[in-house]
Amino acid sequence: MTVLDLNQPTVTGAAERVGVELGARSYDIVIGNGLLSDASHWMGLPASRHALIVTNETVAPLYAERLTERLATLYREVHLVTLPDGETYKDWPTLQRVFDALLERGCDRKTVLFALGGGVIGDMTGFAAACYMRGTPFVQVPTTLLAQVDSSVGGKTAINHPLGKNMIGAFYQPARVLCDTSTLATLSDRELSAGLAEVIKYGPIADPNFLAWLEQNIDGLRQRDPDLLRFVVRRSCEIKAQVVGSDERESGLRAILNFGHTFGHAIEAGLGFGAWLHGEAVAAGMVMAADLSERLGLATAGLVDRLARLIERAGLPTRGPRLEASEYLRHMRVDKKAEDGDIRFVLIAGIGTAVVRSAPDDMVAASINAHCD
Amino acid sequence: MTVLDLNQPTVTGAAERVGVELGARSYDIVIGNGLLSDASHWMGLPASRHALIVTNETVAPLYAERLTERLATLYREVHLVTLPDGETYKDWPTLQRVFDALLERGCDRKTVLFALGGGVIGDMTGFAAACYMRGTPFVQVPTTLLAQVDSSVGGKTAINHPLGKNMIGAFYQPARVLCDTSTLATLSDRELSAGLAEVIKYGPIADPNFLAWLEQNIDGLRQRDPDLLRFVVRRSCEIKAQVVGSDERESGLRAILNFGHTFGHAIEAGLGFGAWLHGEAVAAGMVMAADLSERLGLATAGLVDRLARLIERAGLPTRGPRLEASEYLRHMRVDKKAEDGDIRFVLIAGIGTAVVRSAPDDMVAASINAHCD
Repeated sequence: MTVLDLNQPTVTGAAERVGVELGARSYDIVIGNGLLSDASHWMGLPASRHALIVTNETVAPLYAERLTERLATLYREVHLVTLPDGETYKDWPTLQRVFDALLERGCDRKTVLFALGGGVIGDMTGFAAACYMRGTPFVQVPTTLLAQVDSSVGGKTAINHPLGKNMIGAFYQPARVLCDTSTLATLSDRELSAGLAEVIKYGPIADPNFLAWLEQNIDGLRQRDPDLLRFVVRRSCEIKAQVVGSDERESGLRAILNFGHTFGHAIEAGLGFGAWLHGEAVAAGMVMAADLSERLGLATAGLVDRLARLIERAGLPTRGPRLEASEYLRHMRVDKKAEDGDIRFVLIAGIGTAVVRSAPDDMVAASINAHCD
Repeated sequence: MTVLDLNQPTVTGAAERVGVELGARSYDIVIGNGLLSDASHWMGLPASRHALIVTNETVAPLYAERLTERLATLYREVHLVTLPDGETYKDWPTLQRVFDALLERGCDRKTVLFALGGGVIGDMTGFAAACYMRGTPFVQVPTTLLAQVDSSVGGKTAINHPLGKNMIGAFYQPARVLCDTSTLATLSDRELSAGLAEVIKYGPIADPNFLAWLEQNIDGLRQRDPDLLRFVVRRSCEIKAQVVGSDERESGLRAILNFGHTFGHAIEAGLGFGAWLHGEAVAAGMVMAADLSERLGLATAGLVDRLARLIERAGLPTRGPRLEASEYLRHMRVDKKAEDGDIRFVLIAGIGTAVVRSAPDDMVAASINAHCD
């Protein structure tokens, strides 16, 4: 990991680029304030007659017109499909509406799909692009903090199955990611905090300096200081790009990005998806995973307290909901990382260093019980 | 293309291997009489606790038990899901039954899927494998001639959308293809003939000697001579493997494999899918495409007659159904090969040499009208 230069002043104004190096599938993440209004960052996208914007009912009134305007100079026909908002619609019948729109409008296999929205829209649009005529190009235009710092980068696409979250999907990389940080101004406080959970995770797994920087700047981030937000998106994307560049299909290293996610997944599944936001579940999950790291002697004492303090200041829950430890364990066993029923945890062996390993059920249960209501 | 040595005696008994060279995604096609009963060809498949056989109601009573027996020595848990038979079930609700089975039985992302059946089962199982937990390994065990000589090789997987055939899918390669030619004994005559259409196409597009060989041996093939069938599967797979090896995702050369398919697609769509078998539509489509090749001055006169004679001897239609030429054209414009409404035809410039190009609508209409009832 590159070391963060805390003395380097944050550049204001111009947009910044972070490269994701994946050979023929390499692409740029462009980060800047006001990208949706600046034509210069939209040059060089895949050529086609047709473009299709996929968005949801919440985002459409805010940004669909601006994106349509941007694309109208690049594509002869710009179509729009607006899906209902929320995790409960991350399913096949809703995805089918994207395919319907593509076929009804005569879109060929060069058609470029644009995902305008948060993580759900990005995951669904990417999966639609992966499958339509066996693959069309797509571009991520994330409008939430969670999507800008995490889900829009790396090519994980999916929909949910009634029996499991993100169970049906593909690894399919976008042609570009365009993060307009000015869209973060319209996020609710709750959504902003949820995004901060995925930001915070990068500290323990990859970068002690970034964790320290977050501790200094968490209040400014919650107040939506544009420079701080842009920096946090860039640094998160840099770390994610490095991890994904070395392990695109999660055969090893990439799993560290799931720090807190195995416990978090159990919280989401146990309460029913949508009750807690993904980032909220990950936040409480990180505290449990940190506890398990300490309990197994991997991390020195103090990690749990330090992480919980930052998570709390970010406006996020540090404790899981009241569920039996056995129920947590049951949900964790159907996690995609589980192999042959063996749960794989991302644990912290000193801040900045993650390891992936299994753990005895009683130790896991102790970590859960210590950090749930 | 390698030249076929017609003097080389067909080896009897032992199985043969044809390699598909795709770098890290390379795999073998194994061809032999009685492979389902011979453990030696099943070694070295991807390791896992779980295997899932996907088959249909017609094939299950014939071969599911034998395959289960074969896999029971390799995998701790061998599951079976039996789908209804037919093109009309190549849809999302039916595919969902595969995902249901995988999740209900706790199958992780190392689970190996086995496609036991014809083209529909192969396409659906491959697509399920491509999507389940973003990708699990799968193995093709084709039991129809069409699947053994064409659809099981090359990694095209898909389901149909109400508005178009094979519109939702993925390029996803199998780990191995196991063609037990003894299963061809249980095919209906009509299914056997339909498979021969995809065999015949390899002559005009790639191999004049193979076309001549087919003209000599078509009667023996229809009488299901095991050595002739095995040879025809091997030679077809060799040609297909070469084409796919040089253009996996159909950015160029691979399109030649669709000879007869653009017209054939219009026949299938125009009559409603399932009225004609895919191979039957391709057969009449090849005659139209040959006619268009002659009409455009690409092929010398005589190609149409020669091809039609062989197609007829194979028990296949040489003329399309009564549909308006304008209806053919309408369906052809939504073909996946069409770009920006421009239909791309696979045409023959001398036997063994295919080209892909567009053609004036009136010429296309003339070719259709000359060869439909």
